[in-house]
Amino acid sequence: MDVRDLDTPALVVDLDQLERNIGAMADGVRAAGGRLRPHTKTHKTPEVARLQLQRGAIGLTVAKLGEAEVMADAGFDDLLIANEIVGTPKLHRLARLARRIRVRSCVDSLAGARMLSSVAVAAGVRCEVLLDVNTGLNRAGVAPDEAVALGTAIGALPGLVLVGVFSYAGAAPGAPAADAHRAWAVREAETAVAIARELQARGFPATEVSVAGTGSAVYAAATPGVTEVRPGTYVFNDMNYSRLGISAVERCALRIHSRVVSRPAPDRAVIDAGSKVLTTEKRALGGEDPGFGFIEALPGTRIAALWEEHGVLRLDDDGRQLAVGDVIAIIPNHVCPTINLADSWYGVRAGTVEQEYAIAARGRTR
Amino acid sequence: MDVRDLDTPALVVDLDQLERNIGAMADGVRAAGGRLRPHTKTHKTPEVARLQLQRGAIGLTVAKLGEAEVMADAGFDDLLIANEIVGTPKLHRLARLARRIRVRSCVDSLAGARMLSSVAVAAGVRCEVLLDVNTGLNRAGVAPDEAVALGTAIGALPGLVLVGVFSYAGAAPGAPAADAHRAWAVREAETAVAIARELQARGFPATEVSVAGTGSAVYAAATPGVTEVRPGTYVFNDMNYSRLGISAVERCALRIHSRVVSRPAPDRAVIDAGSKVLTTEKRALGGEDPGFGFIEALPGTRIAALWEEHGVLRLDDDGRQLAVGDVIAIIPNHVCPTINLADSWYGVRAGTVEQEYAIAARGRTR
Repeated sequence: MDVRDLDTPALVVDLDQLERNIGAMADGVRAAGGRLRPHTKTHKTPEVARLQLQRGAIGLTVAKLGEAEVMADAGFDDLLIANEIVGTPKLHRLARLARRIRVRSCVDSLAGARMLSSVAVAAGVRCEVLLDVNTGLNRAGVAPDEAVALGTAIGALPGLVLVGVFSYAGAAPGAPAADAHRAWAVREAETAVAIARELQARGFPATEVSVAGTGSAVYAAATPGVTEVRPGTYVFNDMNYSRLGISAVERCALRIHSRVVSRPAPDRAVIDAGSKVLTTEKRALGGEDPGFGFIEALPGTRIAALWEEHGVLRLDDDGRQLAVGDVIAIIPNHVCPTINLADSWYGVRAGTVEQEYAIAARGRTR
Repeated sequence: MDVRDLDTPALVVDLDQLERNIGAMADGVRAAGGRLRPHTKTHKTPEVARLQLQRGAIGLTVAKLGEAEVMADAGFDDLLIANEIVGTPKLHRLARLARRIRVRSCVDSLAGARMLSSVAVAAGVRCEVLLDVNTGLNRAGVAPDEAVALGTAIGALPGLVLVGVFSYAGAAPGAPAADAHRAWAVREAETAVAIARELQARGFPATEVSVAGTGSAVYAAATPGVTEVRPGTYVFNDMNYSRLGISAVERCALRIHSRVVSRPAPDRAVIDAGSKVLTTEKRALGGEDPGFGFIEALPGTRIAALWEEHGVLRLDDDGRQLAVGDVIAIIPNHVCPTINLADSWYGVRAGTVEQEYAIAARGRTR
């Protein structure tokens, strides 16, 4: 099928660019002496995970237990859940999954670790855990100066094996400069490595140091002691990472095809992609309003407002040529939640749809 | 099952409150002398649509053709698609659907209407359309002073029947006062009625005047000439409408149950509901930051930051009692996109889960 015959809105992926992105990260991490456990939350698609493993990834990262179950059902047997697992229903599911495959999760509190320990002991499994350390994102994760004491307590609990240290510091705040990203990445990595070494010195098998994302992966991989990096967004890239200087627009592999359904005023068009497709995420840098996505062919036309089913374009002179029925291609601001809103995406080469891919782990919030 | 045993995050609906909300709007519109065609985009759930019809709704509104197909499959036979239908694949689907049930859609351009006309003629069906008029939202819709001329041209096209006028003006901008909402609603309604009367005078059967939403439905229903109103959010209500003075917190029927998974600092907790559950929508009024939802039991604790799978709470003194494993109930800012992110919700009475409802029309973006 010709890509122009797809119904809209549609998520369209340039398969050549996707493969280049997967290869470039694999090569970059390998050249830095590191190992790659890519975060699959960006694509939620087993076929892409398989490409990542074929290019040398050592295992996969997932965001939720429900995503781990989907990936296990798809045949993957080495997963890291980049999150704390809490609550009785989930702990039992985790114990069941740990019987089928190698699955690790994060801990950052003695209370949480004790609950997992009890369930693991009752289920007769040993659950491998990583100590989640806060290296600057200020989300979850124990403070670095409390990490060794907490790890020592958790490592002594029955049913658990403290296999290492986990961290995610995100992208460097502020300036989109390579130096800033490198410094931020190295700081995260060195903090995690130091804690892992202290835990090893206390007799725990905390040999794993799992850190970083797309903006920091290659820098972290080059830091001695880091054993795996977890970039996710690099498979598709997006406008947020382009604006942060982490990626580039020409490396964006995913576009949303959307159709003009209304031309109610000379400077206004309405498209059939709203917040149910694009999300309302918008990260402004330097005070400039980036709109709700980027229309590469019409860089001066802004996606100025969104409702659930409507996107309103503020048209510049080039944009005024748009007519009802025309299709535009949009690079999303943040590709991960965009993927989560769709049931499938279309893989395209040279203008022809090669395959429709089901987003098998979409919507797994539990 | 006890509601406390649900895995999290979970969408929990107080069925008594839902029924009260459905009854109150039905009674209010009827007392005003109007008829109700509720917008089902808020719940996307056939069982709720059935309750609305049992309480006297004359038909249903949907947001997309794909939602119309889901509702038709569920047995509903009188639907209005509150949107322009454009593009060959959708026009053929619309023509097929028009053979099965009564389905109306909107037009606001001669170009769009001509495409629908061609497909309708080729398919041997007559498609009923409403002329979409812009009454102040500045989204889609023809400008009022161009509406009669456009309607006259569209009404002459073969295969189409121009049955009336459509408008959605949204909530009154600015001040959350009943007077402002009433004035805004009446202005929208009277504009639409005047255009319908002019089209009737020109010989078109444009007898339908379909307007309004939750904030304007009762006021519009009382305006002479309005034949139907389309509120949606009223079934659940949400914080946006509470803050706008359209609803009240005690009439919110849906809450997100979410669990504390991390307590990394005295004033910080992390919950298992992030933007994949709550959305990033936030409507500030008067400069105050409302956070990403409202925790009724902890009104001074703010949902300060979201990632896809993490919500970060900034805790006040009451919030500091939260421990890992605790569950909190959150009223979302905007309930419609929250529903669209979930596969199902739980109907609860007196703390007991009565039924799990599939969100059958979730994700129908086409």
